Amino acid sequence: VASEPTPAQHAEPTPIRRPRADQARLVADVLRHQIHAGGYPDGLPAEADLGRDFFVSRNAVREALATLKDEGLIDRGPRTGTHVAIRKYDHGLDALTGLKETFKGYGEIRNEVRATMTVPAPPSVANRLALSPGEPVVFIERLRYLGDLPLSLDMTYLAPDVGDAVVAHSLETNDIFALIEQVTGQRLGNASLAVEAVPADAHSAAILQVPDGAAVLLLERLTHLADGRPVDLEYIRMRGDRITLRDNLIRRE
Amino acid sequence: VASEPTPAQHAEPTPIRRPRADQARLVADVLRHQIHAGGYPDGLPAEADLGRDFFVSRNAVREALATLKDEGLIDRGPRTGTHVAIRKYDHGLDALTGLKETFKGYGEIRNEVRATMTVPAPPSVANRLALSPGEPVVFIERLRYLGDLPLSLDMTYLAPDVGDAVVAHSLETNDIFALIEQVTGQRLGNASLAVEAVPADAHSAAILQVPDGAAVLLLERLTHLADGRPVDLEYIRMRGDRITLRDNLIRRE
Repeated sequence: VASEPTPAQHAEPTPIRRPRADQARLVADVLRHQIHAGGYPDGLPAEADLGRDFFVSRNAVREALATLKDEGLIDRGPRTGTHVAIRKYDHGLDALTGLKETFKGYGEIRNEVRATMTVPAPPSVANRLALSPGEPVVFIERLRYLGDLPLSLDMTYLAPDVGDAVVAHSLETNDIFALIEQVTGQRLGNASLAVEAVPADAHSAAILQVPDGAAVLLLERLTHLADGRPVDLEYIRMRGDRITLRDNLIRRE
Repeated sequence: VASEPTPAQHAEPTPIRRPRADQARLVADVLRHQIHAGGYPDGLPAEADLGRDFFVSRNAVREALATLKDEGLIDRGPRTGTHVAIRKYDHGLDALTGLKETFKGYGEIRNEVRATMTVPAPPSVANRLALSPGEPVVFIERLRYLGDLPLSLDMTYLAPDVGDAVVAHSLETNDIFALIEQVTGQRLGNASLAVEAVPADAHSAAILQVPDGAAVLLLERLTHLADGRPVDLEYIRMRGDRITLRDNLIRRE
């Protein structure tokens, strides 16, 4: 086993040695994966051991650990060593599921309902829900906890008939998806999803208990009933330090 | 058309009026969607008009526009009004495609190859590529541009036989996916994907030309050949202000 990187045989352009910052990024990426996969329950190895595992200098290891600390993923102390500080939770994109269904194996999802009201639909909300601008829509804002941990801030616009029926039920302990299926007597069909990484605005940051400008996942999801009618438009802010979205992609012929 | 929000009929708990910060967030979310959908090519409407469209106060509109300006999505000037500053590009998650294939309709993808080399595989990279720790893997780092715009920083580990053959070809203008299929004579099969929102470390930020700590999408993608062999492990950092991931989700029976 070589202890130094060697250039690829057929590389073009001319191969270069990686500067330390690049090595540090690579180490951080791989450690991040291992932490998310549940590795290191008893703490991370010492810097020297990590350097040996990754074939990089101890300084590169130190930089990598600093990056992971900035992300809030690990804690470091002179006596205590390096420990995993935060557990991330997987949210699958392979199927259309509510948070409570998704996190069944992790613990109880609890919703703090911050607002339920009827508002006139802004033009583009109306457009996506196949309503006329200004028609009433039911707006629901929920802060969603896994145990005591705030995970996501969800703002939901529902078509008025569906929304009126949904808000007659308890939103604290039920997924809106489950309630929609219950009140309409129909299964959901499909949803179009957009995922972005955005800095948390001051207000969302305070509610989600993250620093101003922290990286959050913003999901915009428009969900249709099985009969194709769009009934549920959501804007979901998930804590970037807590949630990993997972998907399986197939190569098309 | 009501000009003020009215409480939902069956709401529980007691409906509340939205504070301005909430209204501003809603307006920002909806405007963000419209901008991404290509709306407002000639600039955004005046604050007063937006307030009327969204049934909110002018102060709420002003806050919403400040959020979008912080995200780098719009420019505002006293004479010039409010304009869309940045175009976002869609990257579909519905199929396994390279960036060049994905952005065919938008323009030319060009790759700046920052490194190609053979390195001993760190343990967890080896594990995912079904190699032994320390076995050589081919490492490639590319900064990917759409025209003059840096979009993503990709670090790729390839199984050694595949990697040696891939780096014999031009990486500047080809997707690695296309090259893998060319050199193996096999189609790709499927890939597992993890998506996270992370703050850009100082080094990645400099390369991607974004501020330190800016929100970036970090994709970890492990791609298999059609025969099931894992050959390509990538860590991809996409500029959060430039890329939207899109997917279509189906409700499972």
